[in-house]
Parts: sequence; C-alpha cells; structure tokens
Amino acid sequence: MSTGFATPQDAEDAFYDALDESDSAAMQAVWEAAEDVFCLLPMAAPSIGANAVQQSWQPMLEGEPRIDIEVRHLHWIQGDQLAIHLVEEHISLAGQQQKQPAIYATNIYRKGPGGWRLVMHQNSPSPPPAGMLQPGMPLGTA
Amino acid sequence: MSTGFATPQDAEDAFYDALDESDSAAMQAVWEAAEDVFCLLPMAAPSIGANAVQQSWQPMLEGEPRIDIEVRHLHWIQGDQLAIHLVEEHISLAGQQQKQPAIYATNIYRKGPGGWRLVMHQNSPSPPPAGMLQPGMPLGTA
Repeated sequence: MSTGFATPQDAEDAFYDALDESDSAAMQAVWEAAEDVFCLLPMAAPSIGANAVQQSWQPMLEGEPRIDIEVRHLHWIQGDQLAIHLVEEHISLAGQQQKQPAIYATNIYRKGPGGWRLVMHQNSPSPPPAGMLQPGMPLGTA
Repeated sequence: MSTGFATPQDAEDAFYDALDESDSAAMQAVWEAAEDVFCLLPMAAPSIGANAVQQSWQPMLEGEPRIDIEVRHLHWIQGDQLAIHLVEEHISLAGQQQKQPAIYATNIYRKGPGGWRLVMHQNSPSPPPAGMLQPGMPLGTA
C-alpha cells in the first residue's frame, strides 16, 4: 500500500482515479490513516477519523450506476505541510447523457514522512435542478 | 485595523462576531488581505482573492433580517501555519422563532507575521426542510 504521494496533485489524481474506478483499497490508500482527517459529503453528517471516512465512501464506491468524474482545478493555497485545492467536479452517471450540475469541492492534503495524502474533502452545495432556479442566481456554472 | 489574531480561535470568534454584528470592517479585518484566500457560500460560485471574498459577504452583512449565529466546534486539524476548523452553524433570523437547519462549515486560518487570519470558508449543503427528507437519511442534525 502506498504511504504517500510525491505531490498534493499526485494524491488528488489518485483520489479521483479511486472514485472513477470504484476502488475501495485505492481510496483508503489516498487518505492519511489518522484520527483527525474528516470528510463532508452532501446531506450527510461529517465523518471524522480514517475509519469513518472510509465507511462514508463505501455506498458511492459500491453503488450503481458507476460514476465518471472530470475535475477542473480552480485554485489552491499551498503551505509547507498542508495544501488546499479548490476544484470543480463534473460528474456523469454511466449510461446517461444528461449532465449533472457542477459540484465545488475543497480537498486538503498533508505532507507526512512518506509523502502527501488526503486529510479533508468537502463538497459545496450542489445547485438544484434547473427548473427550480431563479434567473440571475449566482451559480457560476449553470 | 487588526493585522492578525493570537490564535486561530480568536480569528474564528472575530469572524462570527462580524457576521452577528453585520460589521463589514470587522469582516474585512478577519480575512487575510491576500490573493489566494477563497470563500464558497451556498449556491454561489467561489469567490477568490480578498476583494472578491469581501464583496461576497456584503449582501449578507447588509441584508435584513439580521441573523444570529451560534457555533458549535466539531473538530480541527492543527498545523504550524494553517489551522482547519470544522464547525456547525446554527443560524436564526432576527424576530423569527423557527429554527433553521444546521449548516456545516470549514474555516481555515493561516499564521502570518501579525498573527492568524481567515483564508478559507466553505459551507456544506444545508439539509432541506424536514418534510422533504426520507426517513433514515444520514443528516445527523435533523
């Protein structure tokens, strides 16, 4: 199992590859095995600690239909030991042409003795379906 | 104007005080005046850079009714230069008894020469009204 990645970006690539490939072991390897990591998925209470975080991903990793994610990097805050990445996730469901609204996410990576690993993932609100929107709402990606 | 706070928690207290008091100058003083700070408010595109972040708060700081915020600290990741705080915000509107659903938020503080200031704020999805929920959904705070 990997003990870390050479750069925060390498860890991020591995994170989205794990999601794309529904690979539970790869997902576990991306996260630092620490008690202070946490994850905030939409409409869920926070998951705190490596075990809880891993469990929180299981429904998505085991779910059907499979998901396909494209990620656009928007911005980052780079520290010596922590790196904060803001991305825009474009998720599509296998076999469906319909585009889902973009999701904003923040990913935070921490540098350990073995390299960089994920310590926080948070999704921003996913915009409601188009018919429910008021014209002029500052969605950015609508 | 403050150039920073003694601890991340002092900066966080000042942030929520600024919101509670609709104090635009205090809000500006809480944020680091840097190009890499960013903010993700519900249903809005990300605001990147100190000026854009400050503008994104203006509608809330100028809005009516005034809001009252109680904050519960859930968790943190503490680094030497960056501190990540996960909180639960309980927001009520002035003059209204009805409780709003809790909002999860991540706040990140950075240590500069003058002390700690806010560099990132992101809200998690606010759960929908109770009647729209399926029983058993992992809301945590419903």
